[in-house]
Amino acid sequence: MITAVYPGTFDPITHGHADLISRACRLFGRVVVAVAVSRGKQPLFTLDERVGLIEQVVSGCDNVVIRPFDCLLMDFCRQEQAQVILRGLRAVSDFEYEFQLAGMNRRLRPEVETLFLTPAEQFGYISSSLIKEVSSLGGNVAEFVHPAVQAALNEKYAGRKPGA
Amino acid sequence: MITAVYPGTFDPITHGHADLISRACRLFGRVVVAVAVSRGKQPLFTLDERVGLIEQVVSGCDNVVIRPFDCLLMDFCRQEQAQVILRGLRAVSDFEYEFQLAGMNRRLRPEVETLFLTPAEQFGYISSSLIKEVSSLGGNVAEFVHPAVQAALNEKYAGRKPGA
Amino acid sequence: MITAVYPGTFDPITHGHADLISRACRLFGRVVVAVAVSRGKQPLFTLDERVGLIEQVVSGCDNVVIRPFDCLLMDFCRQEQAQVILRGLRAVSDFEYEFQLAGMNRRLRPEVETLFLTPAEQFGYISSSLIKEVSSLGGNVAEFVHPAVQAALNEKYAGRKPGA
Amino acid sequence: MITAVYPGTFDPITHGHADLISRACRLFGRVVVAVAVSRGKQPLFTLDERVGLIEQVVSGCDNVVIRPFDCLLMDFCRQEQAQVILRGLRAVSDFEYEFQLAGMNRRLRPEVETLFLTPAEQFGYISSSLIKEVSSLGGNVAEFVHPAVQAALNEKYAGRKPGA
Amino acid sequence: MITAVYPGTFDPITHGHADLISRACRLFGRVVVAVAVSRGKQPLFTLDERVGLIEQVVSGCDNVVIRPFDCLLMDFCRQEQAQVILRGLRAVSDFEYEFQLAGMNRRLRPEVETLFLTPAEQFGYISSSLIKEVSSLGGNVAEFVHPAVQAALNEKYAGRKPGA
Amino acid sequence: MITAVYPGTFDPITHGHADLISRACRLFGRVVVAVAVSRGKQPLFTLDERVGLIEQVVSGCDNVVIRPFDCLLMDFCRQEQAQVILRGLRAVSDFEYEFQLAGMNRRLRPEVETLFLTPAEQFGYISSSLIKEVSSLGGNVAEFVHPAVQAALNEKYAGRKPGA
Repeated sequence: MITAVYPGTFDPITHGHADLISRACRLFGRVVVAVAVSRGKQPLFTLDERVGLIEQVVSGCDNVVIRPFDCLLMDFCRQEQAQVILRGLRAVSDFEYEFQLAGMNRRLRPEVETLFLTPAEQFGYISSSLIKEVSSLGGNVAEFVHPAVQAALNEKYAGRKPGA
Repeated sequence: MITAVYPGTFDPITHGHADLISRACRLFGRVVVAVAVSRGKQPLFTLDERVGLIEQVVSGCDNVVIRPFDCLLMDFCRQEQAQVILRGLRAVSDFEYEFQLAGMNRRLRPEVETLFLTPAEQFGYISSSLIKEVSSLGGNVAEFVHPAVQAALNEKYAGRKPGA
Repeated sequence: MITAVYPGTFDPITHGHADLISRACRLFGRVVVAVAVSRGKQPLFTLDERVGLIEQVVSGCDNVVIRPFDCLLMDFCRQEQAQVILRGLRAVSDFEYEFQLAGMNRRLRPEVETLFLTPAEQFGYISSSLIKEVSSLGGNVAEFVHPAVQAALNEKYAGRKPGA
Repeated sequence: MITAVYPGTFDPITHGHADLISRACRLFGRVVVAVAVSRGKQPLFTLDERVGLIEQVVSGCDNVVIRPFDCLLMDFCRQEQAQVILRGLRAVSDFEYEFQLAGMNRRLRPEVETLFLTPAEQFGYISSSLIKEVSSLGGNVAEFVHPAVQAALNEKYAGRKPGA
Repeated sequence: MITAVYPGTFDPITHGHADLISRACRLFGRVVVAVAVSRGKQPLFTLDERVGLIEQVVSGCDNVVIRPFDCLLMDFCRQEQAQVILRGLRAVSDFEYEFQLAGMNRRLRPEVETLFLTPAEQFGYISSSLIKEVSSLGGNVAEFVHPAVQAALNEKYAGRKPGA
Repeated sequence: MITAVYPGTFDPITHGHADLISRACRLFGRVVVAVAVSRGKQPLFTLDERVGLIEQVVSGCDNVVIRPFDCLLMDFCRQEQAQVILRGLRAVSDFEYEFQLAGMNRRLRPEVETLFLTPAEQFGYISSSLIKEVSSLGGNVAEFVHPAVQAALNEKYAGRKPGA
């Protein structure tokens, strides 16, 4: 059985992430959504909040597990006995960084393979940071995220003056 | 009559921006230079300073208005009854982000069209951030910005040790 | 009134082209679809066939005219008294060639402005050449082109062994 | 069991292709190397020669089959009951075309997923066309292809004046 | 003394090429303009014509020699005892192919270094193929090429109907 | 004699940087490694530490000098009487920023030429920031940096909880 790790910050999870996870579930025996602690990036949502939102969004997939991680990705893959890392590719600039990372990871642990997926067309321009920007300015992001995520965003930005 | 919005931080306005504005004035009935408050980016110039410098630079165009905005761009377009968003494209990396943004904006408000212009060759490598970097290190940016902007930059960086 | 020229080979016109034309019609007083003779490229459809298909597809737009051209684009713009060239941007590689062309055209005729539009998300991956490839192999392209274009493609490829 | 199709012209197979195939064999139950007839591209090697060279190169992998195809890739995937298409990504320009193709293929057959792999660093700049160019000019390509491929290239170019 | 080879088809030489050569002459002891025979590309100008035009254009540089070549570039470098290959970089797509080529060349001959230069801004969008396209359609290319090149282009295209 | 300046933050120096320096030493009479103070970027290593590590790494090259700088690069080039700036190009995104910078620098000081080198294949995905990220998470970077740099990284991250 192949275990595939799908790492990210998921701050918050979007329809693009969810679509990729559900497609991965059909291809791999076990899919581990690896939620990076990402202290340096100062996420909007806490680790627990991010994990909680993913749980609600992917509840229908039996072979998905959600795990936080705070170490080198390749060490996490060893712990999870994963043979595959999954990454979404939206744009050329994604690609370049990902390419660099994949090269480094192959050096660190050659037996783990990085596989890239492209998003469905209607999710190609969705990113967590764009979602947060639109939401923080009072825009409606219902089309791009799960209702639970929308509610969580509204709560975060409720007290704020738009754009503050 | 078509109203075109040209959004940006303009921190500060360069010859590249001014060139794009003057070209837009010949094509559209009304051009709104939309100055983003951009709290998050911590601009060098205050909003008032940025608006003031744009006023001096574009004083010759009758159908230009300058407006600060602190909301979702698509909400601003509705207020201004704009049908067009104008964006300058200098480089591939510009293009990718812009492409993503244009897709999101089309979803939020399909009746507003994003149009891209490329800079005149002599302005292709000018960006506000590069101008500030050069100016902060004591370099001469007279070729790239209006004299009023140059004076404003000199004043900002006057007290600083170069590179500090 | 602004006249905008939208040049291409249109071999054949796709939903992506049609979408761009209908959006241009809302922004410019007159839109000239300029059909390049393109002898060098050996189009699948003759000039007359290509013009005929465009006529059927854009019949609903009052301010559109369709014109073949066999000269320098900037000379064609002068004949048509056009101030704007419209180009679709699908990808980074499009962008680079277009950028080069826009620079050259600006040198040849500075008063004509090149404006770029991005396709609607569902048309981003459609190109005339991909349509022809799929159609020549017996694939169904009904989703991507007007029924008249589909019929014309079927007729062209009818006698062929798939892939020949 | 997941069947993965790896399509290409393989004119001729390089170490880069072989590396990707051997990695795919560890991840998927069955890997189908799909050799495109590619009449339009006028390959250097005949279909039989290309299939024969692949057979020699991948002889060590039990779960690989080699199949010519001369139809729409998505029709071939249905015949082979494949759930996955594999593609190598070497460069940004690869990526753009691949992205477009993946979008089209998803529309034609949403249940088949396109997965991208990046080459090992030492194969990143190898392409079949570069190999042929170097070999046709008398250069030594022993480092980049299997000995059987090198012998076949030497034979093809034997009678030719270098560069002719 | 460092010998630098600047290879190309030069069909025909443009102001962009000439600018790069004159800058190279200030940096390297000897600059070899290597004119590829390029049989496969079917150049507009014969090898003798291309060499002749380069001679007229670069006549002012003492340390430049012009040499045709019809072999592997790295073999030519050995013959010329060159340590450096010079390449102009105009665009991202240039860059990718060049990157691939530089990697291959380094493998074939590690002691030769590939150095890239970017064109002066006013030459960034000039390419030989664009020059030929404009000239074949009756456009004026006086700004982009030497008068001798312009005369040669006019002669080549004199008998032709524009665009034929 | 040609003096070439190789500017960077070198936080810390990697095998990729060292490889580029040793290649530059064979081509230019004098190579100045210019270590940017980079106050704004908050480097991990102090200026003295960065200079010290470079000294250990490049000790074998006679014609290399190491100099900190805290001014406009073009002013530094004048002080050093340099005719060349050297830059490594790893990726398209590098290229775009570099292109912009090279254009600006040419305007500020046309007699200084920017030359780009591509890294050896095995260093293409190494960057100082990736090295620091891997090292901070307890990964082994022995393959990518000099032992002295590895020791310095270990010391910096010794007290830290992985990933903190």
